[in-house]
Amino acid sequence: MSAPATTLGSDTFEHAFPGSRKVHVEGPRGVRVPMREIVLSGGEPPLRVYDPSGLQGVDVRAGLPALRQAWVLERDVHRAGTRGATELIPSSLERQAYRGRGPVTQLHFARRGEVTPEMEFVALREGLPADFVRSEVARGRAIIPANINHPELEPMIIGRNFHVKINANIGNSAVTSTIEEEVEKLRWATLWGADTVMDLSTGRNIHETRQWIIRNSAVPIGTVPIYQALEKVGGVAEDLTWEVYRDTLIEQAEQGVDYFTVHAGVLLEYVPLTARRVTGIVSRGGSIIAKWCLAHHQQSFLYTRFREICEIMRAYDVSFSLGDGLRPGSIADANDEAQFAELRTQGELTKIAWEYDVQVMNEGPGHVPMHLIKENMDKQLEWCAEAPFYTLGPLTTDIAPGYDHITSAIGAAMIGWYGTAMLCYVTPKEHLGLPNRDDVKAGVITYKIAAHAADLAKGHPRARQWDDAISKARFEFRWEDQFNLALDPVTARAFHDETLPADGAKVAHFCSMCGPKFCSMKLTHELRDEARRQEMEQGMAGKAAEFRAAGGELYVAPASR
Amino acid sequence: MSAPATTLGSDTFEHAFPGSRKVHVEGPRGVRVPMREIVLSGGEPPLRVYDPSGLQGVDVRAGLPALRQAWVLERDVHRAGTRGATELIPSSLERQAYRGRGPVTQLHFARRGEVTPEMEFVALREGLPADFVRSEVARGRAIIPANINHPELEPMIIGRNFHVKINANIGNSAVTSTIEEEVEKLRWATLWGADTVMDLSTGRNIHETRQWIIRNSAVPIGTVPIYQALEKVGGVAEDLTWEVYRDTLIEQAEQGVDYFTVHAGVLLEYVPLTARRVTGIVSRGGSIIAKWCLAHHQQSFLYTRFREICEIMRAYDVSFSLGDGLRPGSIADANDEAQFAELRTQGELTKIAWEYDVQVMNEGPGHVPMHLIKENMDKQLEWCAEAPFYTLGPLTTDIAPGYDHITSAIGAAMIGWYGTAMLCYVTPKEHLGLPNRDDVKAGVITYKIAAHAADLAKGHPRARQWDDAISKARFEFRWEDQFNLALDPVTARAFHDETLPADGAKVAHFCSMCGPKFCSMKLTHELRDEARRQEMEQGMAGKAAEFRAAGGELYVAPASR
Repeated sequence: MSAPATTLGSDTFEHAFPGSRKVHVEGPRGVRVPMREIVLSGGEPPLRVYDPSGLQGVDVRAGLPALRQAWVLERDVHRAGTRGATELIPSSLERQAYRGRGPVTQLHFARRGEVTPEMEFVALREGLPADFVRSEVARGRAIIPANINHPELEPMIIGRNFHVKINANIGNSAVTSTIEEEVEKLRWATLWGADTVMDLSTGRNIHETRQWIIRNSAVPIGTVPIYQALEKVGGVAEDLTWEVYRDTLIEQAEQGVDYFTVHAGVLLEYVPLTARRVTGIVSRGGSIIAKWCLAHHQQSFLYTRFREICEIMRAYDVSFSLGDGLRPGSIADANDEAQFAELRTQGELTKIAWEYDVQVMNEGPGHVPMHLIKENMDKQLEWCAEAPFYTLGPLTTDIAPGYDHITSAIGAAMIGWYGTAMLCYVTPKEHLGLPNRDDVKAGVITYKIAAHAADLAKGHPRARQWDDAISKARFEFRWEDQFNLALDPVTARAFHDETLPADGAKVAHFCSMCGPKFCSMKLTHELRDEARRQEMEQGMAGKAAEFRAAGGELYVAPASR
Repeated sequence: MSAPATTLGSDTFEHAFPGSRKVHVEGPRGVRVPMREIVLSGGEPPLRVYDPSGLQGVDVRAGLPALRQAWVLERDVHRAGTRGATELIPSSLERQAYRGRGPVTQLHFARRGEVTPEMEFVALREGLPADFVRSEVARGRAIIPANINHPELEPMIIGRNFHVKINANIGNSAVTSTIEEEVEKLRWATLWGADTVMDLSTGRNIHETRQWIIRNSAVPIGTVPIYQALEKVGGVAEDLTWEVYRDTLIEQAEQGVDYFTVHAGVLLEYVPLTARRVTGIVSRGGSIIAKWCLAHHQQSFLYTRFREICEIMRAYDVSFSLGDGLRPGSIADANDEAQFAELRTQGELTKIAWEYDVQVMNEGPGHVPMHLIKENMDKQLEWCAEAPFYTLGPLTTDIAPGYDHITSAIGAAMIGWYGTAMLCYVTPKEHLGLPNRDDVKAGVITYKIAAHAADLAKGHPRARQWDDAISKARFEFRWEDQFNLALDPVTARAFHDETLPADGAKVAHFCSMCGPKFCSMKLTHELRDEARRQEMEQGMAGKAAEFRAAGGELYVAPASR
């Protein structure tokens, strides 16, 4: 494992995806949707795939262009307090903040029957009708996290009738990392395919880090505001107050955070339910709230002030990610009383948020053995009225620290198939340390695999064409196309070149594992040539059809038996 | 990726598994079953887990001790032709070969109600009664691949009521690798947990390589004899004959190969069914046989001579791994007519093999999207009368060359849960090149994860205790125990040390990701202390019980709403 790098260097879209180019599909109302277009040989048409990588090569001190600004200003908004400049935020990264006079959420517009430019953008991105996007948002089955103060955003949708999405967590901690490193991680994560990024910073300069991140992010940014609130009260959970928390929400909403994790489902009564667990409470936010509740012996202010929180969030269109503070932290604790008690409360809170036109998704586990995964999805769909589910993994075993991107990709793919709309990645460093660049990439690619496998299993109309294109290239020995079509072309090519480095091998009509004599694909081609010859001579195809017509009863023992 | 290493060097059991020691559980009739015993701190009892790593530190020119020799010689066997020494096989690796006068298979003994020492060994290894092992073998639901000419073997069982097993493929190809490198790969693969190893060599010195491998293998060795037969006829599929193939079977059976992949289900009639596939025939054996069938326009001799093959195999107790020569090579071809036609024939052949007391498992796919995986298992159980299923992955998407250990681990874990008894690993080099040491380890660890996740989901009695032990260690901040309990302790420790290298951090009561203030587990411990205090003062536990007794209706809106 190499140490975290500090500059993107040559890691641009062109270097990451040779043979691909970023194209923009033009839509109504000026929307321009980015796609990765993979150019193919052999007379094959180019393939376009979903591309969340964002605009590349932009100076991080200037930030991305404010694509959505005009859309936002058409809404009923007024100027809100500008964020005070600090020496760590250059004026080029300051933005005027806005606040809606009434609700300015995508849910609000969707319910009124209005197709927003964000919905048009999403429709083209997903290959689905704009009014379908609107109706899914209107019924709460999908969300478009898009704070009005995040004009740099390329809108995307989270819902089970769309591509399964993945989230990458970044953020510094007490173990220091610089602001630039975090921006760098954001760009790196989205380059490889992260659909949203959560900034989980807990260290110093938390406000400034976030400002840099949002101004440079084409994907929605999520946070857990209680982390910053806790910093403001010196790290003492008992000293948290509603006022500190509320001010933090407003501060972050005005910066442009697109969704907030709020652990409002952790009730005082549920804390004792975790007492006999093997791993107690493993959510940072959950344990902070639990500690506050127990110290004050009061219901959490996240719960008692939930309607006030909704009123703040709808004025900026910040979406809820209702946290699962009591998610299981081990196989032993999966699907227990504490977990499901909180999930029921998440369902109640979902419906309250909808009263305020606030978009909602629900966070889910965690650590769950395979046979208990589906129950999570079923209960979430029922109790939370089909609001999008957003799970961390789940990890399907605890015995492989160092490989938890894999233990969890198994669970993530399955729960994605069952209906989870977004999968929060897990890196190889989970439980052990902070992910570096390599770990972030490993986590993102692994989760793109899980998400795509789920899309295939659900039958998303655009999923299969990608697999078919690469399989066809493989069978036709179009090696360069096979590499270029890969999720990670550079690694695919490097692995091939380890065995057969010569350029000639990339046009070879055999596979690098087996050599020419034992190449099954080469043999199949010879077979097909032979079959075509015989077919003409002996009517073999007719014979096969005759056999099938006879009911496929093939198992007559030959005379020699 | 580093180049293949040529010596094991310091990669011994002790280095791979610090804090673990190899112990032997004594059983009836002199069986001594190896286990990995993980020594724990904090007053926890040591944990014993399944250990296929074999005896370490043995000179590869001498081979492993012949543990089973006495058991074999008690059976009705006679000396068979000694294998002619060659300059590449030292006399220390020569062994007298034996052949049964009648059937000497585990299935034969099991059906007669006889518990063999191999069954005793397996019973202790799995933690299940010996007669249960016998009855599972007797009904064909499990196999103990154990050629009488492989006395170095530590017996193991493949069946869905036992631990899910994994196979690692090794073997040189036209792209050269030395004999010693292959023995090295064998030992490396079993060190990390491969339960069986297939030698898929197709290059020169195929006989000699195998001799070295078997003499140094404590796990069953599988081969695909058609590969060597093809070498004998100069690589021209059409020139294959029954006689060449038969002699190859006998040669390999007398060397001690434990199971043969035989693609006897590839019938002439099925070849046209692959004509419209995206990726044709992707099994090497399958394409060789298909080519032979088409060239001669005859049914394959593997099928017409199947009973003769059974007669050979029962005299040595070589088990069948009935090959899936028409398995899908892409998502597009999954679960098609060709694939299922062959599976039906595998079922017919299974029953014929059983007539001869020959043990059988069935090979399965391949490339299958998640929603089509279960159908494979269901049909195999039905058509093949519950003979053990042995699948390659399946890969759940085609778009990630370079990561196919992961695309396939998802499918492997699922099909293992559904009832597949053994999972053939896939390395990151699949489709791209030959796996090196790092790739072999990545493949093995990834598949141990899939197999263990399946064991957990199926409720294997010994699975959960491992997860619980590591989770408890994690929660109690016993860092060293957490590393030592890992599937790959060295990687877990190295990842931790990247973030917090100091020794002090390994006794720290916070997790290395979050630092002390944000450690949820630390907070939970404080919480529990606080709760215990309050419990005594305020009877809080009683309150929680009261709440639960009231039916868990918690969702009364607080006054402030």
